[in-house]
Amino acid sequence: MAPIRIDLRSDTITQPSLAMREAIAQAPVGDDVLGDDPTVKALEAYTAELLGKEAAVFMPSGTMTNQVALRAHTEPGDEIVLESQAHIYYYEGGGPAALSGVMCRLISGDRGIFTAADLKQSLRPVDFHFPRTKLVCLENTHNRGGGRIYPLAEIKAIAQVCQENNLKLHLDGARFWNACVATGISEADYAQDFDSISVCFSKGLGAPVGSALVGSREFVARSRRFRKMFGGGMRQSGMMAAGALYGLKHNRERLKDDHHNAQLLAKALGQIDGVSIDLDAVETNLVYFHTPTPAAEIVDRLAKEGIAVLATGPNTIRAVTNLMVDREQIQQVPALVAAAIKAAQ
Amino acid sequence: MAPIRIDLRSDTITQPSLAMREAIAQAPVGDDVLGDDPTVKALEAYTAELLGKEAAVFMPSGTMTNQVALRAHTEPGDEIVLESQAHIYYYEGGGPAALSGVMCRLISGDRGIFTAADLKQSLRPVDFHFPRTKLVCLENTHNRGGGRIYPLAEIKAIAQVCQENNLKLHLDGARFWNACVATGISEADYAQDFDSISVCFSKGLGAPVGSALVGSREFVARSRRFRKMFGGGMRQSGMMAAGALYGLKHNRERLKDDHHNAQLLAKALGQIDGVSIDLDAVETNLVYFHTPTPAAEIVDRLAKEGIAVLATGPNTIRAVTNLMVDREQIQQVPALVAAAIKAAQ
Amino acid sequence: MAPIRIDLRSDTITQPSLAMREAIAQAPVGDDVLGDDPTVKALEAYTAELLGKEAAVFMPSGTMTNQVALRAHTEPGDEIVLESQAHIYYYEGGGPAALSGVMCRLISGDRGIFTAADLKQSLRPVDFHFPRTKLVCLENTHNRGGGRIYPLAEIKAIAQVCQENNLKLHLDGARFWNACVATGISEADYAQDFDSISVCFSKGLGAPVGSALVGSREFVARSRRFRKMFGGGMRQSGMMAAGALYGLKHNRERLKDDHHNAQLLAKALGQIDGVSIDLDAVETNLVYFHTPTPAAEIVDRLAKEGIAVLATGPNTIRAVTNLMVDREQIQQVPALVAAAIKAAQ
Amino acid sequence: MAPIRIDLRSDTITQPSLAMREAIAQAPVGDDVLGDDPTVKALEAYTAELLGKEAAVFMPSGTMTNQVALRAHTEPGDEIVLESQAHIYYYEGGGPAALSGVMCRLISGDRGIFTAADLKQSLRPVDFHFPRTKLVCLENTHNRGGGRIYPLAEIKAIAQVCQENNLKLHLDGARFWNACVATGISEADYAQDFDSISVCFSKGLGAPVGSALVGSREFVARSRRFRKMFGGGMRQSGMMAAGALYGLKHNRERLKDDHHNAQLLAKALGQIDGVSIDLDAVETNLVYFHTPTPAAEIVDRLAKEGIAVLATGPNTIRAVTNLMVDREQIQQVPALVAAAIKAAQ
Repeated sequence: MAPIRIDLRSDTITQPSLAMREAIAQAPVGDDVLGDDPTVKALEAYTAELLGKEAAVFMPSGTMTNQVALRAHTEPGDEIVLESQAHIYYYEGGGPAALSGVMCRLISGDRGIFTAADLKQSLRPVDFHFPRTKLVCLENTHNRGGGRIYPLAEIKAIAQVCQENNLKLHLDGARFWNACVATGISEADYAQDFDSISVCFSKGLGAPVGSALVGSREFVARSRRFRKMFGGGMRQSGMMAAGALYGLKHNRERLKDDHHNAQLLAKALGQIDGVSIDLDAVETNLVYFHTPTPAAEIVDRLAKEGIAVLATGPNTIRAVTNLMVDREQIQQVPALVAAAIKAAQ
Repeated sequence: MAPIRIDLRSDTITQPSLAMREAIAQAPVGDDVLGDDPTVKALEAYTAELLGKEAAVFMPSGTMTNQVALRAHTEPGDEIVLESQAHIYYYEGGGPAALSGVMCRLISGDRGIFTAADLKQSLRPVDFHFPRTKLVCLENTHNRGGGRIYPLAEIKAIAQVCQENNLKLHLDGARFWNACVATGISEADYAQDFDSISVCFSKGLGAPVGSALVGSREFVARSRRFRKMFGGGMRQSGMMAAGALYGLKHNRERLKDDHHNAQLLAKALGQIDGVSIDLDAVETNLVYFHTPTPAAEIVDRLAKEGIAVLATGPNTIRAVTNLMVDREQIQQVPALVAAAIKAAQ
Repeated sequence: MAPIRIDLRSDTITQPSLAMREAIAQAPVGDDVLGDDPTVKALEAYTAELLGKEAAVFMPSGTMTNQVALRAHTEPGDEIVLESQAHIYYYEGGGPAALSGVMCRLISGDRGIFTAADLKQSLRPVDFHFPRTKLVCLENTHNRGGGRIYPLAEIKAIAQVCQENNLKLHLDGARFWNACVATGISEADYAQDFDSISVCFSKGLGAPVGSALVGSREFVARSRRFRKMFGGGMRQSGMMAAGALYGLKHNRERLKDDHHNAQLLAKALGQIDGVSIDLDAVETNLVYFHTPTPAAEIVDRLAKEGIAVLATGPNTIRAVTNLMVDREQIQQVPALVAAAIKAAQ
Repeated sequence: MAPIRIDLRSDTITQPSLAMREAIAQAPVGDDVLGDDPTVKALEAYTAELLGKEAAVFMPSGTMTNQVALRAHTEPGDEIVLESQAHIYYYEGGGPAALSGVMCRLISGDRGIFTAADLKQSLRPVDFHFPRTKLVCLENTHNRGGGRIYPLAEIKAIAQVCQENNLKLHLDGARFWNACVATGISEADYAQDFDSISVCFSKGLGAPVGSALVGSREFVARSRRFRKMFGGGMRQSGMMAAGALYGLKHNRERLKDDHHNAQLLAKALGQIDGVSIDLDAVETNLVYFHTPTPAAEIVDRLAKEGIAVLATGPNTIRAVTNLMVDREQIQQVPALVAAAIKAAQ
């Protein structure tokens, strides 16, 4: 395998820049378990304010922020409603059942997006044969939906159904910043209807580590307790928070570049003989395309050229634009994909 | 509400006959938690032998036999594969997540039946992002599938996929006896490919209470431990086992009458103006039919006539033939349904 | 092993009398999961009224009533406070952790009884390093405490501490009836300070199967949901409820005979050379005594004479007086114990 | 409250030195969830080798390494054996029950140390009334035992009992490095008898964040799965690992200074009128002493002087020597304690 030149596997692979490393090295820190870390506090305050919520709590991963949210909103035997390809259901190691004892009720959305009407139809009457529905989770942008953006109007309609049925509403905002930048909707507007939001600093923003869970003061206080239990209470975590804070302040706007690169890449891939791709579906920085021959082989051939992408289905490949890859590099990719496909046929 | 004359809500409503009550009253008993109850032991031995397995354990409900099976086969963070309308997923109060910490991976079957190919496609590679798939559950006959029978050949193909992927195979046999009687396939043949089978005595067989979990000696020993933990260890439970044993010996063959009555009922309902019913789907004792006006109102009108059925959807009604209802009574039902529909329009 | 002539292993071994069997055989029943069983309803109403509470729910075992109570009062990560030898902690298969995710904080009592002061001292400040204390459980009479009775004044003092600290108070009343009969305190007076009480019908009362969980209407409604999930929802369970109701109406007063027999037995055992026994500790129907040679061998020798008792420690034997053993039989036991000890030396 | 001049609350408060910050800033990193982080890999390899085990896995906290170890060794309904004041039982938010569903069986040790004989006596026979004992956990040095060191010979005797009873043996080594430095026993010798060891980098070693779980290749692979589920999978965590690796290489030997300072402090405190302290109990860097007046008030008075310590009981104060506090500073403390006590009387 050649060394990776162009890494499109995920935006989680982004490395801290020199300036971010400097911010990390200089960060004032304290013991955050004792409530003493000024940089963690600054990050939590900044994030909460940006989203227009009362409080936030810093954690080591997006899986933890999501799973702590589930735990804080529910009790075992409850049911949560999710899109059928949601990250929380699909990629978090069985956490919903194992850590919170909750059943997942799945709605098949349109590339990750379900509607208020879909939600309404999925609800069951109160009966002790059924788990008790307690929480609805959305994902914006939606990873397996191809980075699709959740329309704000649909969120508002869903929030309405939740209120009528005494359900909480959580957002898996692993790529929340992408949704805001792509639509121009402010973080606070997009967050308004949710009881809790999980946001991530280690994807497009380029920070090495960390996510935050955001919500009301009471909810965040309860979540801190479960963070400690899950093993997310860290000591001088201000060093990581410094990277997150730097990313939040400097790297949100530049997500537009990733989106632009994704458009370029998608269009060029669409020109390749045998490749099928839904251009309308490319709304942010995720590009899923389908190959005429097995994806695994194409991925291997590209790896030999130093291009890293992921096979996410028998004939499906995912490429994620990110801050480690500039436009010029993106422009090299389509020809190499075309060559790999040709060689594989 | 008039007193119920003809109760078609479920076969769980069946009452013990005088002869069964006599068997119960006479049963020799002991403290089953101490291993002293001869009637419980006789029932367990008889059931295991009938299914061609090494051992069985008596429990107070089918929900417990299913949930103990899940617990005994898995650990938290595992995934079980089920048909999307499976009783274990749909009607057991969230037990899979709450009691065993397992995620449910759902396959949409054809009225309750999925194929070996469907199963194969649902399996994911080993990766710690995913829960670890550990168990496949089938349901025969399938309740929400309309009492549909699982074809033996399909079971064998599914068992093959399970073996190749190191998965256990459990059967929710709440209406296992119906499947055997309807197909003429022996209990042992139908049970052969499963690692565990849950069977029920308190539905068509007419016993007041009880189910059994059947499998290898080692599996049943492990299940006894979880039965005790779940609160299913009972004392002189031989009295209930006596009813179950009586039903097992005297009431299996007569399930044919229920099936015959279901055919009569389905055909007559199909004649009613506005009623839609899939006659091919009526394979055993469950009759689901669709009404032109809201089901809830029809159910209410029938209740006033002493006919009890259940609305299971906005325009869907379920009628279950059972040993409390004879052919003559069945023949009265269609006209009353027709009248109720007419009145409701 | 000779057939058992005199069974003192437990009061759980009691068999239904002919009259009780008759009541069972005649019981009007219905599908209790659908809320249709008149005998179950009658038992629940009678029990609730007797204890001066709003509601009760029938379950297949005392382990289930206790574990459902824990589940209904707590969430995972909570802490319950128990006496260090409590049945809930000691004998229920790890249910508190496995089914409810709660930590057990143990107080070493005086033969099963701890005080309000002990409780106060065990409480920790609110801090997310600690589990959150939520529930206190007492046991009356206390099994491993030798059937010891909880003084009503101490219960009232403990209830006061609970109220001041926002804790719920549950009673494991497996032998609640013995405590009431022995003290003359009414069931309602003894139950008054508890948020929930578990009572058992299959011990001294002689019913074959069943326990009830008693409390407020809201608590019992919530508990019904967990009963279903744990697998305790049964169909024509009125047959068992009939035995329980019979026992409740006819066999409470006669527990005095068991207590009297326990006194006789304890005094006579105390006369045996080498036997040590704390006569003051024999307050109800449990007799624990200590043997000069290993208990297991004495138990085996007695078994050959048809006398069944249990070794509960290396040199400790438990004998439980119960309705299957009359005074004349009790009078035979001491000589046989003396002979067994002599032979063993 | 004055700014803290001398912080003796815990060794978790230690801040990264400039050199450590430099190592962090320069660390080569990758996406550790994808297995790409060279610094994390280097830390894991170095730690495993130091302890003489096959593998190690880096996690954000010692609570997570302990709780993942419990999860990997057990299933719900199992029992773990712990000293009654063990950190795992006492300070980890109820994780054993909430995350692993295990019951805690507590042995009261002598300041944190129990013996092989104690362990033997606590084991119960196999019986499904009991949870199944599966794991024994020791703590070295023992936090609430006053930093006491576990004698190697006792560990070996305990390991022998574990082997005979098919039990796993885990070490909470939050202050494992202190035990090694204080005794001169090598890390590998001290780790040899354990199936898993949790070690911490963010206490005396001065790293900002992180712990490792160490054991066999198979055990660590299984633990990685649960790390991901618990939310401990981080991205460019090499930055944190760089701090840990620096601490491991440069700060182990200097723990001797902390131990020496603890001796100085303890002896001087012992001279103060009204203070009681067990000098023999001060074996490493934890100093617990008892005050004649309420500890909380003494702590407040010291805080006004810029001295931070913790009240851990009504009349007990804990002071922990650490790399932020030098000998000269330590020498200032006793006089201030004496003054605070005098003022409080």
